[in-house]
Amino acid sequence: MNKDRLILVSNDDGVEAKGLKTLIDVASRFGKVVVVAPAEAMSGMSHAITIKNPLRAKRLQKSSSHEIYSCQGTPVDCVKLALNQLLHGRVPDLVLSGINHGSNSSSSVVYSGTMAVAMEGCINQIPSIGFSLLSYDPDADFSTAGRIAEKVIDNVINNGLPNGVCLNVNVPDVSFEKVKGIKVCRQAKGLWKEEFVKRVDPHQAEYYWLTGYYLNLEEESDDTDEHALANDYASVVPIKIDMTAYNAMDEIKTWRF
Amino acid sequence: MNKDRLILVSNDDGVEAKGLKTLIDVASRFGKVVVVAPAEAMSGMSHAITIKNPLRAKRLQKSSSHEIYSCQGTPVDCVKLALNQLLHGRVPDLVLSGINHGSNSSSSVVYSGTMAVAMEGCINQIPSIGFSLLSYDPDADFSTAGRIAEKVIDNVINNGLPNGVCLNVNVPDVSFEKVKGIKVCRQAKGLWKEEFVKRVDPHQAEYYWLTGYYLNLEEESDDTDEHALANDYASVVPIKIDMTAYNAMDEIKTWRF
Repeated sequence: MNKDRLILVSNDDGVEAKGLKTLIDVASRFGKVVVVAPAEAMSGMSHAITIKNPLRAKRLQKSSSHEIYSCQGTPVDCVKLALNQLLHGRVPDLVLSGINHGSNSSSSVVYSGTMAVAMEGCINQIPSIGFSLLSYDPDADFSTAGRIAEKVIDNVINNGLPNGVCLNVNVPDVSFEKVKGIKVCRQAKGLWKEEFVKRVDPHQAEYYWLTGYYLNLEEESDDTDEHALANDYASVVPIKIDMTAYNAMDEIKTWRF
Repeated sequence: MNKDRLILVSNDDGVEAKGLKTLIDVASRFGKVVVVAPAEAMSGMSHAITIKNPLRAKRLQKSSSHEIYSCQGTPVDCVKLALNQLLHGRVPDLVLSGINHGSNSSSSVVYSGTMAVAMEGCINQIPSIGFSLLSYDPDADFSTAGRIAEKVIDNVINNGLPNGVCLNVNVPDVSFEKVKGIKVCRQAKGLWKEEFVKRVDPHQAEYYWLTGYYLNLEEESDDTDEHALANDYASVVPIKIDMTAYNAMDEIKTWRF
């Protein structure tokens, strides 16, 4: 452990999540860890920030190796509050997020609080990684994901990341021996097909529950994160915070406004 | 108006917002409009979705030209509920969002509920546009933004949009005569510098209010949305839903995991 290296850790499953504990263990091998995580589970919160209400933070633990705060806000609120208040002006060397209970591959990246943490770190020009395990089980086995995370963090520390790029790492829910490798991939084209369940409450008013399933729009492609994960590889997708569609610009510049 | 063209309209300022009314007026010139907008203001909600609570929707208006629903959910919930329930299986020809009260240029796109609506439309393979006016005033003058929106919508209908690309349109808060033109730009590199205001409540507990200002990291560049807007152009940034950093992949593939 390098005591001069400061690592900020957050997640979207909340400060009590098992996946967070694994990530704290792994991160502690690389430096001093400060955790600022949501007090409650915040899945699907994406890059939401809290504007209308104040935020509160509570220090739950403090030792020589790590500090843990809970924050009554979104995952991105946690990063902002850490960078601007709780770290007392120190800029972390790394921002890590997860390990999420459930996949954040393909287009799930836009809904994901886990990846929002990594993107917020990246916007603030700090090397950042989001980790997710393909299991929604609150008591999932994070040992494989922890070992993959350690390898990825080690590489990011040694190689750095390009400016404006963070990593989206997903790990299949299998034993470490069964993982075929770590594959650098592109984000698969896909979407969530929603199937709202419509119900009627005791007062005869209708309400809807969001459910759905993921639809891969390019199952034939072998260079996507979905393909890697389906074949027991861990996937690493470099994610850009500049969302400009550069290759569409020339065409749109020909329009007559 | 083309009665066969179905246009879904939403926003993040809520169903009562003045900017939404302007967009409904403009959209109605192009087709039948169905509005599904949040019951309350939802600024900063990004691409958040509601998983833990059910959604409710209420039809507020129905006429031959348009229908208006309010939904107790996030902007993206509104789109999902429309596509999967309220439109009874009809797929809209266009998804429009806004007109937002306040800028969504540069990196604000990741926090923006307005742009999340457009991105959700785009993920569902529908041509989609988000509109924002550079004024946070609830009573802002949307006449310029409405005229710009009409020109952009007309072009999208006539030219289409590439698969996986939606538009982020921002309009300066000036009279239409003062707008120098509509410029196709890239997203400026920039970030919000937070300045949390720390207070102490009557029970001696600390809390924090999020405030901040936008910092343009490339003021010298003349091809960004920020530069266009600062010079009284309306900006059109094509936005990709595939966030893969393709130009970083080769380098990361050389890492030893």
